[in-house]
Amino acid sequence: MKRPIKTIGFDADDTLWHNENLFEEHHRKYCELLSRFHDAETVEQTLFQTEMNNLADYGYGIKSFTLSSIETAIALTDGAVSSDELRQILDYGKAMLRQPVELLPEVAETIQTLAKRRRLILITKGDLRDQERKIANSGLGSSFEHAQVVSEKDIETYRRVLRKTNTDIDSFLMVGNSLKSDILPILELGGRGVYIPYRLTWEHERVSEPPQESERFFKLESIKQLPDLLDSIS
Amino acid sequence: MKRPIKTIGFDADDTLWHNENLFEEHHRKYCELLSRFHDAETVEQTLFQTEMNNLADYGYGIKSFTLSSIETAIALTDGAVSSDELRQILDYGKAMLRQPVELLPEVAETIQTLAKRRRLILITKGDLRDQERKIANSGLGSSFEHAQVVSEKDIETYRRVLRKTNTDIDSFLMVGNSLKSDILPILELGGRGVYIPYRLTWEHERVSEPPQESERFFKLESIKQLPDLLDSIS
Repeated sequence: MKRPIKTIGFDADDTLWHNENLFEEHHRKYCELLSRFHDAETVEQTLFQTEMNNLADYGYGIKSFTLSSIETAIALTDGAVSSDELRQILDYGKAMLRQPVELLPEVAETIQTLAKRRRLILITKGDLRDQERKIANSGLGSSFEHAQVVSEKDIETYRRVLRKTNTDIDSFLMVGNSLKSDILPILELGGRGVYIPYRLTWEHERVSEPPQESERFFKLESIKQLPDLLDSIS
Repeated sequence: MKRPIKTIGFDADDTLWHNENLFEEHHRKYCELLSRFHDAETVEQTLFQTEMNNLADYGYGIKSFTLSSIETAIALTDGAVSSDELRQILDYGKAMLRQPVELLPEVAETIQTLAKRRRLILITKGDLRDQERKIANSGLGSSFEHAQVVSEKDIETYRRVLRKTNTDIDSFLMVGNSLKSDILPILELGGRGVYIPYRLTWEHERVSEPPQESERFFKLESIKQLPDLLDSIS
């Protein structure tokens, strides 16, 4: 059942603005801090494992990441990490939370164009306060009829958000940089998805099986191509 | 303008279920952990000051509290706190995040009774994932037409939630244990508020000036008294 796209859902981090690059920078500094104990690969792997173990308790976001970074540093060094070094890890986290929002290229213009003709909603995962801060600072807030911060992006969450925003899945299209979180659940629900990869993908968001090319799945290199795609499919 | 109460908003932590007692327990253990460095009063004051300094970055909730607890422990001991002790602070935080939800007395029955005759919404402040977990585990979720986790409870937030839920302030009543967060903003907006104190109030939520007794402000000792109050005022 193909119907015109009335509502477009956008992911935020790494779809509208840079995010993963902040984590990349933190990882670099973190590995350097612990380099007298372990090589970067061991540090990275242990940190990722700790994050996964803590996901049910902490959820996503910078505060969760900071807590897992501290736990990992203590565990990996058998407690030999100094409290000054732990203090630095706290400071890295705060610096990330204060980082200005940097929009991806062509985002501002494209969102402005699309908002004139379609209903836009924002669906973003992570820490409530930090996501609200970024939405406010992005300058894009007023283009979105709804902005929903969610703690997980699974089928149940999307079902709830679509119901809450009176959105029909047949006229809905979701745009994001994560196949796992932004695209696959929407395809499963019968909607359409546009995948726009970011330079970096967090290991947790990677999927081994990309969606089969179908008439409901599209991949673009830049958000700039989105208006033309929309014109061509609906 | 007095109109019948159609929608009742409920705060959650310390209004529907115990919360501050978990923090009290954490504070006790935390002060004990640092007792070889400082007396409990110094520890408490410094921790509170750190939390306030971090509020803009971290917001509310257990993860924020844990991060501030670690920062305070390092600062207060000039780094002499051991990484094993810091690890214990992380563990306290996780234990809090896993604590079962314990409803306050008479809450289940009262909410069930009220939900039959009025529209109930939940408005709770804090960490998104943790609040969602508690709502789900409380068994009360289905009694509420909306459950909104917010990052701050100020006039702007309430205005947004009321608009989003199509709630008219003249037929709205908010119930909570914090004068500052649950009652004063609602009175300011022209709504009605029912204050039900909890045994403990976090210093940040205390106000020096309680609202003047007015026909829009009520104080109860227990949620059990709420149905009768509603019958008498609308």
